Amino acid sequence: MLHVVTPDTAYSIIKNAFDRIDGTETVSLADACGRILAEDICSASDEPPFDRSTVDGFACKAADTFGSSVPLPAILEIAGQISMGQPADTVLPKDSCIRIPTGGALPEGADCVVMQEHTEDFEDGTIGVTKPAAPGENIIFKGDDIRDGEALLPAGRKLLPQDIGLLAGCGISEVMVRSPLTAGIISTGDELIPEDKTPAPGQIRDINSKMLGALCTSEGCRVHYYGIVEDQLKSLEAVLSKALTECDIIILSGGSSVGEKDNSVAAISSFGEILFHGIAIRPGKPTLLGKASGKPVFGLPGHPQAAFFTAKLFVRAALDRLTGRIRETIQIPASLSASVSANDGRELYLPVMLRQEEGITTAIPLRGKSGLISNLTRAHGYICIPRNREGYAEGETVSVTLF
Amino acid sequence: MLHVVTPDTAYSIIKNAFDRIDGTETVSLADACGRILAEDICSASDEPPFDRSTVDGFACKAADTFGSSVPLPAILEIAGQISMGQPADTVLPKDSCIRIPTGGALPEGADCVVMQEHTEDFEDGTIGVTKPAAPGENIIFKGDDIRDGEALLPAGRKLLPQDIGLLAGCGISEVMVRSPLTAGIISTGDELIPEDKTPAPGQIRDINSKMLGALCTSEGCRVHYYGIVEDQLKSLEAVLSKALTECDIIILSGGSSVGEKDNSVAAISSFGEILFHGIAIRPGKPTLLGKASGKPVFGLPGHPQAAFFTAKLFVRAALDRLTGRIRETIQIPASLSASVSANDGRELYLPVMLRQEEGITTAIPLRGKSGLISNLTRAHGYICIPRNREGYAEGETVSVTLF
Repeated sequence: MLHVVTPDTAYSIIKNAFDRIDGTETVSLADACGRILAEDICSASDEPPFDRSTVDGFACKAADTFGSSVPLPAILEIAGQISMGQPADTVLPKDSCIRIPTGGALPEGADCVVMQEHTEDFEDGTIGVTKPAAPGENIIFKGDDIRDGEALLPAGRKLLPQDIGLLAGCGISEVMVRSPLTAGIISTGDELIPEDKTPAPGQIRDINSKMLGALCTSEGCRVHYYGIVEDQLKSLEAVLSKALTECDIIILSGGSSVGEKDNSVAAISSFGEILFHGIAIRPGKPTLLGKASGKPVFGLPGHPQAAFFTAKLFVRAALDRLTGRIRETIQIPASLSASVSANDGRELYLPVMLRQEEGITTAIPLRGKSGLISNLTRAHGYICIPRNREGYAEGETVSVTLF
Repeated sequence: MLHVVTPDTAYSIIKNAFDRIDGTETVSLADACGRILAEDICSASDEPPFDRSTVDGFACKAADTFGSSVPLPAILEIAGQISMGQPADTVLPKDSCIRIPTGGALPEGADCVVMQEHTEDFEDGTIGVTKPAAPGENIIFKGDDIRDGEALLPAGRKLLPQDIGLLAGCGISEVMVRSPLTAGIISTGDELIPEDKTPAPGQIRDINSKMLGALCTSEGCRVHYYGIVEDQLKSLEAVLSKALTECDIIILSGGSSVGEKDNSVAAISSFGEILFHGIAIRPGKPTLLGKASGKPVFGLPGHPQAAFFTAKLFVRAALDRLTGRIRETIQIPASLSASVSANDGRELYLPVMLRQEEGITTAIPLRGKSGLISNLTRAHGYICIPRNREGYAEGETVSVTLF
């Protein structure tokens, strides 16, 4: 018999049973995108480091432009010029302005920049300002973007291109990131053959190994494939023993139920303990998690759709726990195109296609028999029907999580 | 003067001026996740290749179970057993059933599988079926998942873990994918210094090189960094000439406007033609695209936020064109937390944070001065205010595109 836990209990068990793995490495910014930050990053300076103009024009005192207009321009003497990349060592004299390029450093005494388009060049060393400027206009002040000491990015963040830009801007040229985890994938099942073999009658190709491996790869893991192990406890124990020395996390696919050939529980128990066996979800009820040599060992159902959902939900939660990754999931509200029912007291996960037309987002449930893989490739994401709901009606708003 | 095109015109120009690049390579499934498929994939067989049971139970004729109940079970003789991975060579005799495991091959003559839970074992070689089964119940039929010859995945698809599973299931153990493009990144600007140097007064660290490079990396490119080039036409031409021999696409950052030090137009013109100079968007108006040695050469604005948006929109469109990638963008409807205005006749792109609470998705616009990078790292995505709108009111529903 399975001793079924709720999904929330499963997540708590994962969180409490395992710790973050220590391995980190330092990489340059060019190699940091997509990696998981292993340290909190704070700024060590104000950015920009000086007041900068955001336009091509003239730095001046805003008060000197008040009341100006095209017929009555404010006349200012051009007292100098700021060059790109040079310090603003000129101090603005009275009734004057200083020519400044976009990005140039604001000279002392100036409090605004008048856009070139709002000036008239009298070609006698003076200009006419034809529109009043407010103090601070067209200036990014020192520290406007980032303050010295400001928390920029938290440990656990998966670095995005814009984060890399932020780090460069702050002068952080290398960062400490989590070392990739190594995931071991073991398939079990006497009916399974590798994908490059032709099935004899009664045989079927192993879908899960490469799918689960790809899922781990897309989460940044290195993957060891241990192939297909026959439904014999000794064989499974031998492979599991090897995997435990080589991997940080192990996923067994198939053999997680309670049939006579379901050896996952016994094999894991030989090296450690079972933390749960059975989760109240559908598909994926006969999912098990053990802890052996301190490492998570999952036993996932052999049905590809069940293996996919349980990996997306629980294996990924374990990967996040081991790396400390902070994951934000944005859901998409959508109108359901057809009613869906669920009434067996388990959370139901259902792949859906999304259609977006004229501002309306529709979720089309892709029902099908357990085990179908093709539905997953047609889907954009999934919906979850909670345990306490009998389903959703056509037209009801549901939350779609993208794959 | 800029000759400004609309975003749609810019996309058309990109599409018409460039072709897909021929380079492909063949990779095994273990290396295929995240790669862009270079061929249409069709199934060469029915999957599953035979009728399979989805439960542990007994294969039989559904008609033999009609009318059965717990007090009045239908009695069937156990005529044999199907083993996993073995052909179903037994033919079902009359008034009989055959024991079958989950995934076992359905024997000839059977048209349903009765779950073990709905039977009673009389331990005399017969069972009682306590619940009628319908024809087809608990069976995945041959070809139910995938039909022989069915189109599975189109060329241009970025392969997901579930696609890898589908390919494995169909016996496709290696696939032809697009070779990675090589992107060259060149920054220009006399005020710029590399991110690992300390800025002297008036200097600023180069944010864009590493940010744009990371963006290209995250799109699957190899990246060559050509560093910071001084604002001299000759210097820029020399670097561009080298990059044109080494890269498939080149991105110049800075120097794309019409100032005296904006050399991008002249440099690109030395090797080819300018396709457009100026796009009616904000930020990012002074964006230019040239074609040199048949390759796209972008000139992006130096402001990080402008560089980011123009790369996300137009550089990515060019990468998709070169690889043939089919990209689907799902948008998230959200209620705007504050009104935003735009009235200069350009599409306005604005970073937003998303908050999801109690089924309500709120988009919080992150306004700020042009050039700020920190806003981008706080944002989940962006909204676009079309040219013909003056803005959106607080509480209005907007479409958010995730970064």
